[in-house]
Amino acid sequence: MIRGPGDDAAVVRARPLCVVSVDTMVDGVHFHLREGWATPAEVGRRALASALSDLAAMGASPGEAYIALGLPEGLVEEQALALVRGAGALAATCETTIAGGDVVAAPALSVSVTVVGWAECEEQLIARDGAQPGDLVGVTGKLGAAGAALAVLHARGDDGGRRGDPPGSEAVLALARSPLPRLREGQALAGAGARAMIDLSDGLASDAGHLGRASRVQLRIELERLPLADGVLDVCAALAADPHELAASGGEDYELCFCVPPARRESVESALEQAAGAGVTWVGEVLTGDSGVSLVAGDGREVRLGGFEHTW
Amino acid sequence: MIRGPGDDAAVVRARPLCVVSVDTMVDGVHFHLREGWATPAEVGRRALASALSDLAAMGASPGEAYIALGLPEGLVEEQALALVRGAGALAATCETTIAGGDVVAAPALSVSVTVVGWAECEEQLIARDGAQPGDLVGVTGKLGAAGAALAVLHARGDDGGRRGDPPGSEAVLALARSPLPRLREGQALAGAGARAMIDLSDGLASDAGHLGRASRVQLRIELERLPLADGVLDVCAALAADPHELAASGGEDYELCFCVPPARRESVESALEQAAGAGVTWVGEVLTGDSGVSLVAGDGREVRLGGFEHTW
Repeated sequence: MIRGPGDDAAVVRARPLCVVSVDTMVDGVHFHLREGWATPAEVGRRALASALSDLAAMGASPGEAYIALGLPEGLVEEQALALVRGAGALAATCETTIAGGDVVAAPALSVSVTVVGWAECEEQLIARDGAQPGDLVGVTGKLGAAGAALAVLHARGDDGGRRGDPPGSEAVLALARSPLPRLREGQALAGAGARAMIDLSDGLASDAGHLGRASRVQLRIELERLPLADGVLDVCAALAADPHELAASGGEDYELCFCVPPARRESVESALEQAAGAGVTWVGEVLTGDSGVSLVAGDGREVRLGGFEHTW
Repeated sequence: MIRGPGDDAAVVRARPLCVVSVDTMVDGVHFHLREGWATPAEVGRRALASALSDLAAMGASPGEAYIALGLPEGLVEEQALALVRGAGALAATCETTIAGGDVVAAPALSVSVTVVGWAECEEQLIARDGAQPGDLVGVTGKLGAAGAALAVLHARGDDGGRRGDPPGSEAVLALARSPLPRLREGQALAGAGARAMIDLSDGLASDAGHLGRASRVQLRIELERLPLADGVLDVCAALAADPHELAASGGEDYELCFCVPPARRESVESALEQAAGAGVTWVGEVLTGDSGVSLVAGDGREVRLGGFEHTW
């Protein structure tokens, strides 16, 4: 960073390709401060994680973040600082510099994060539109924690008490409150031959559909293969939810979904292991057809998942 | 632009230095849709102008803009599209590509614009902290239109009728509604030897103070030398306001204020003329002292200007 906050604009040294994404979260829409469902620090962290996750999905290296805050009257300065510290803590672990931003008055707390990432050449970056029939469909990490956490919060009584939280709740809430954008994984996947990629912000059912439609193919995903995060099975048992359907429909897991030619399967697995100590779960394959996605249950029948409530 | 909206992130070819600024405007705080003081198209234009003006103040070349919209329930799609078109029309005249953004639900209309500009080397960019005693202080264009327009709107009755608008109102309202960021002027000034620069978003009295304090000097500005925009004299006569004080205290004129060694005076004047067909008004000089700014009336007495209401 050559110039940071305090002048008219920030100035940083560039690399050949500039990759940019913007993500906004608003109180009452994307999180709920008042009900105690989220703290300001978590809001800062999650807003930055969501934006950085888009860079991960391109295979870009992280660079800078710019945070535009809208602060309502009732929010005290300490809460705003906690929000920025929450974002700052994640930025520090993601090789990201918070290089500027803006602060204005607003009717509700809002956080708009612009992230700038970098790449040396086009071949380093992976878009959504390169999947081809015959490719394998993989995901990083484990799914369902954010969806299960939201289900736990919704199931709480009006008093917000935690006494009735089902087993597994602590695990899924902890995971959901500190999402980690898969930046190293994204770069490793791009380098190892993934040819289409997207991050799971809306949930696999939606996001795999985006990728499939952009590539004019159909991603056939077997629900029972989805890797479940710690606590998801317990929470779903207590709340009578199908854990694999929840893992497919819940948003904000911020894992990556990607398509790889079968010949690159091993190189992708070892690249992920080397770069991030992470595994791959192969959850399906790419078929011809332009419906985007089809989700298949254990008995082979196709499952349609309705919209899922992501707000929390 | 290699990849625009529709993938996880936008991808553009970079130049060696990346210059970024973020600017947010919120309904009820920075503009008032309901009172009819601003249209959605004007809001889009002004939000982009405000952000691009920061790039102008650095001497950067414009590149891309990313627009994060918060849309309240009552806003119809046509209004949101009008806002984006308003920004798009300005972008087209400023060699700026709208390369992405975000749209979310929000309690009030908000527009957060991130602009990315470019430069080849550090010497092309001008910060706030380079002014030195003995420098001349100049401004581009003419001042006071936005402040006078705001005064006209405040003076209207509760019915919002325009019948009582004083002479000059149409001129200042037209200027205030379509601000032009001084991008070419900023680059010309940087190339011709300006050594400190800032854009006039909060008003000269405030912004010259920012520059003066960043440079640890005092900008002595003679109010009577300030160039007044068309209509300002008439409006001020009708509303019993001092036109030069209004020109110094009113925000959102988006002209540039800059400091130049006396030896570069002619080269700055001819560079501005060549690059933008624009003139310079020399409004003061830089003195030792770290008070930032002093404003001097025609009789030599120092003038202190209170805060000015910028909301409209």
